[in-house]
This record gives sequence, C-alpha cells and structure tokens, in this order.
Amino acid sequence: MFFPEKDILSADRRTAHGPAARKGENMNQTTGKSSIRLEKKVYILNSASIVGKKEGEGPLGNLFDMVGEDDLFGCGTWEEAESNLQKDAVYMALGKAGKTAEDIRYLFAGDLLGQSIATSFGLASYQIPLLGVYGACSTCGESLTLGAMAVSAGYADYVACVTSSHFASAEKEFRFPLEYGNQRPLSASWTVTGSGAFILGGEPESGPQGQPPRAAITGMTVGRIVDYGLKDSMNMGACMAPAAADTLVQHFLDFNLMPEAYDRIITGDLGSVGQTVLLELLRDKGYDIAGQHMDCGIEIFDAQSQDTHAGGSGCGCSAVTLSAYILKQLEEGHWKKVLFMPTGALLSKTSFNEGKSVPGIAHAVVLEAL
Amino acid sequence: MFFPEKDILSADRRTAHGPAARKGENMNQTTGKSSIRLEKKVYILNSASIVGKKEGEGPLGNLFDMVGEDDLFGCGTWEEAESNLQKDAVYMALGKAGKTAEDIRYLFAGDLLGQSIATSFGLASYQIPLLGVYGACSTCGESLTLGAMAVSAGYADYVACVTSSHFASAEKEFRFPLEYGNQRPLSASWTVTGSGAFILGGEPESGPQGQPPRAAITGMTVGRIVDYGLKDSMNMGACMAPAAADTLVQHFLDFNLMPEAYDRIITGDLGSVGQTVLLELLRDKGYDIAGQHMDCGIEIFDAQSQDTHAGGSGCGCSAVTLSAYILKQLEEGHWKKVLFMPTGALLSKTSFNEGKSVPGIAHAVVLEAL
Repeated sequence: MFFPEKDILSADRRTAHGPAARKGENMNQTTGKSSIRLEKKVYILNSASIVGKKEGEGPLGNLFDMVGEDDLFGCGTWEEAESNLQKDAVYMALGKAGKTAEDIRYLFAGDLLGQSIATSFGLASYQIPLLGVYGACSTCGESLTLGAMAVSAGYADYVACVTSSHFASAEKEFRFPLEYGNQRPLSASWTVTGSGAFILGGEPESGPQGQPPRAAITGMTVGRIVDYGLKDSMNMGACMAPAAADTLVQHFLDFNLMPEAYDRIITGDLGSVGQTVLLELLRDKGYDIAGQHMDCGIEIFDAQSQDTHAGGSGCGCSAVTLSAYILKQLEEGHWKKVLFMPTGALLSKTSFNEGKSVPGIAHAVVLEAL
Repeated sequence: MFFPEKDILSADRRTAHGPAARKGENMNQTTGKSSIRLEKKVYILNSASIVGKKEGEGPLGNLFDMVGEDDLFGCGTWEEAESNLQKDAVYMALGKAGKTAEDIRYLFAGDLLGQSIATSFGLASYQIPLLGVYGACSTCGESLTLGAMAVSAGYADYVACVTSSHFASAEKEFRFPLEYGNQRPLSASWTVTGSGAFILGGEPESGPQGQPPRAAITGMTVGRIVDYGLKDSMNMGACMAPAAADTLVQHFLDFNLMPEAYDRIITGDLGSVGQTVLLELLRDKGYDIAGQHMDCGIEIFDAQSQDTHAGGSGCGCSAVTLSAYILKQLEEGHWKKVLFMPTGALLSKTSFNEGKSVPGIAHAVVLEAL
C-alpha cells in the first residue's frame, strides 16, 4: 500500500462529528452513523423456505415449506442442487404471495460459492433484473436491506430477496470435499442446506388467501468489516462475534435504544461459541442482551443429537429460520419487534491458505409485527 | 428442481403488461420494465484510477492517477496486491473529492475473486459500512447503480463505489496460475490490473480546488442473466455480448430512445470478438450502434503491440477507463451524454469444471456532462 494506515482514519468513526454526521441530521431517512429509519415501511408480503434432510429432522423441521429427501435434490452436483434450492424458494415465495416473476422488478440475491454461482445458475430462468450481493452468511440481511431500500424509495413495486447455502457445496468451497472424510473440531459449525426467499412490497396488501403481510421492515443498520485477527475457519462463530457486537452497538447508538426495545435480537449463525463471545463483548460495552439474544444457528439443529457441534451456519441458516420461525412468531403475536442480524465471515479458501485472518460483518434489519 | 420450467414465466417479460408494468406508471422514478430515471440526479464528485505496469504502457497510460512499477505493488501475494489497489483507489478518490472516510456513509464494492476477498481485505481499515456487490465484470455498473439509488433517495449524503481486478489473481482464480505458462487463444481477453473508485454525492458541490463534479448519473437499467449456452471461458466476449444486447434493447425500450441519443455507448470488456457479436445481435433487433459503440477492453490496450488478444477485461477494466478517460471526455465537453454498461461473465472455476455454460449480465448507467 502506498498510503500510511494512520492517514486513512483521522478520527474514530463512531464518535466523530464530521460533515456527514452534521449533514445527516437534515436527512430524515438516515439516523446516526450507519442506520436508516425507513420513512415508508416495507412489507414482507410472503416468503418461503426449503431445506435439506438434516434440517428437516431438526427442531424447526415441521415449519419449513419443503424438506428435500436427499441433499442432491435430484441434481448431478452439489452446486446445481444449491441453484435449484434458490429457484424453488423463489417459485414458492412468489406463489404464496400471489405474484409472478413479471411482477418482480428486481432480484437481490447471493450465496457463499465463489462468484455466486448458485444464484447465477438458479435464478436465470426468471428473467428478472438481478443485483447480486455478497456478505458471506450476512447476505440475507444485506439483500433485505437493499431490497427494502429500493421499495421504500419507490424504485420498485415488488422485489425478491433470496439467499442459499448447501452443506456439501460449502465444505468443498471452503474446507475439504466431503469424500475426504475430515474430522471437525467442536467449535466448527454445520453449513445449513437451505434457501429462503422473501417478496417485499410497499403496501400492506393481502395475499391470494386474504392473508396479511408477514411483517414490516422499518429500519436497518449496515455493518462494517471487523477484524480481530482470528484465523480459525473452524471457529467462525468467534470470528464473526466482534462484527455482530459492532453492528449492534452502532444500532443501539443510532436509534438511541437499549436491548429491551426488542423481543428478540437474532444473530444469523454465531453458534454456541460465538454467542458466548458476543454476550461478553457487549457486556464490556455496557449492554446485556442475554435476555433477548437468539441465534438461528443454535435454533435450527439439536447440536447434541444431530452432531452439528457449535450450530448451523451459512446464508441459508438465517434465511430459512427467518421465513419458517421468526416471521411466524411475529405473525402470531408472540413477538412485536425483533432485530434480525445475519453474520458473515469474510474468508475464502485462498485467503485462508495464504494465512489471512477471518474478518466478520453483520447487517441488522428491524422487523415489526403488523 | 421441483417445478417445471414452463411454469416459471407465464409471458415474455419484455412485452408483458402485467400488474408491475401498470403500477410502474404511477411511480415516477421507475421507467419501463427494468430502468430507473432518477428524480434527483446524483453527482460523481470525483474519482481515482490505479493500474498496473502493462495498463500504464497502453493507450490510456498517461491518464491514470497512478501506475504501479510492478504488479505486486509491494505486497506478498497477488490477492493482497489487489486489496491494496482498492484501498489506494478509495484513498485517492477521497482526497481528490476533499472528503474523509468519515464523510462516506456506505461503500458499495466488489471484485472478481471468490468471496470478494480483495474488497474484504482492502477496505476494512476505512471502517465504512459495506454493502458488498457481485456482478462479475459488471460490478462497477452495479455499484454505481446501487450507490446512486441510495444517494438519490436520501439514504446517504456520500457513498463510495469501488471495484478492482488483477491479472494474476484472476488467472489463478478462473484459469491457471501464471507459473503454468499456459497458452491463450486469440479470443481470450487480458484481465486488467487496476481499481477505480468513485465518490457520489447528491449536490453538485465543488471539490477542494474548486473543480465541479465530474459528471451526473441520471438513470440506470439493471440487467438480467442471459445465457446463450456458450461454454468457452477463453472467449468471454462472446459469452457476455448477448447480455449486453439484452440490457441495451431494454434500455432503449424503457427510455424510448434510439442509439443516437448517446455520444457513446460504452461496454465494459467485450473485446474485439464480443463487439462483433454485440453489433450483429443488435442489428437483428433493429438497432445500429456501430457509430456510438466503444468498449473499454478495446481502448485500454493496444492489442497488437501489447499482445492482449481480444482486449482487456475484469472489473477494473471498465472502472479505470471510466475514471481516467470517459469522465474526462464528459468534463471537457467532447461528449454530453454516454451510456456506461459494464458486462460480466457469471462463471466460476467450479461451474466451468462442471461443464456449465457462461451466462452474462450487463448493467447500464446513464452519465451526463454538467
């Protein structure tokens, strides 16, 4: 690099009161340093979740819209199987929302595979303009953020947000092909085979059976890259927890809230190890979220009986848990307001092999019951 | 897949007059099927381009802000070198625009490497909230599209859009490590080593030396995935040309324009083979753009003397050409209005090895002189 590190940041972003902070006060859609409070809320009209066999056998098993009989889903390769998960999730979400592909102005989609091939090969046939996103396992949060921004601003009547992951394609992409039969430490997580798709709209319109939208998106906090220098790709929970803590603290500051404002604060895939780190980091910052915290990776598997170690992970983990479980709790009135915050580990096989650390990122979306 | 292909699309998207098309007429920010006409235009306040040695020796060589002496840029790996290209491009663009990292609300960034590691490791130190994007070599168009949408809607005062590519990291990622010394056919393109960064703002404010913004973004057409079934990763121009034609025809229909509306219609990296295919495909659709068409991949190298075969390619190709050459032509009044349309080939090493085709995508951005 040509420029010295110290020149890059002249002050801590969080406490700086530079031109952006001052100007931000004049813009009623932005709040604080990193967040947006949507002037016009956006509705999750409907959604769908498709998972693999193991996820179907887990605690949320009977809540998913579809459970595959085997994880190839009738395809020739793991990557093709993951593509079809995305295609089918979008298809089901469209049907449940009473929409067709022609109604959807933009797709916001991504996955974990190199060059997002699950998305490229899964969604081509819809012929919907595509804005590809990448935030590792935080991608569901990023796609909902960008999709809701587009709808709220009037750039689209309807958008679809979709993400996926697949245990076998992810192991091959990031670690070892399954055929190697390698051992996994207890801190490792189990990549969820699944895809979740969400149809967003600007009006609280009813679906084909007269059902109301599932929830409203009212705000978001975009995360930044946080790197504590951890290098263990078999302990991604610990790698991502600092990013989750960073986004959460920024969210509380930006919206001037305390954890009690939420019925649940839901991370994507920290798992049991990452959860411990997150709670500890937040206590150090003066926030206790032990009463509100939930992690999709912990919910989706019974770690003990399913041998999934630290919990579930992957873009699909938070996406299918949101569609099948979180939105259901909001619909049924058990929760009024939750913060949905998928967490991503920004590594690749190349960066890992070159000895780089595993930075994290987390994007938070405010979901409210209707 | 569970659902039959024929069920997915009930009508051709382009000619359908479904609910989305009708509702779209009530929304003055959207136009046609896939496009946005920005109610409030967005300004490219300033930008920067950094390239490698070979690009510095090409026809645009003396226009770039910085040319590296060797392509490792003082780093230990090609990936680290690419990360530093992004970091330095953002640093220079901020300086030229008279902004600091604290002024920038969101980063829209991406690259070609698996899991976008050039972005993750290059931009972490800025501590700016990041929305990662992926559109292969169309990523510069996608980042400008999303960045301009965010600024125009009032979600941000300032955003930065940055993309990069690196010849050596891309060859390793997609084809073979350089050390193999493999031969390349004449249809192959040469991935540009370079990064371009753009600072967008909502007001036509002057820079630190009193210079006006470089250009205005007034509209965009988001592309969809187009797959003609071509499988040759050594002929990506031909793979991407159908997507370029698709986005262009949609753009003309959405804005009710003919090619003559633009001084230049500029694709990202079709190269000489792709250009021929694009012109032919458009002639079949009734559009002759031979008088307006320009391709960044053709401009950036002297293919004959630099032995770059079909031309330059990569996310960096269109980004550095936009910053160094296209915006300069707009500033100097040679052109009034151009359509900037980077083109991407949606393949990965895995998809190629599994015998999949190479689908394309292209995102178009309308740029106007002030």
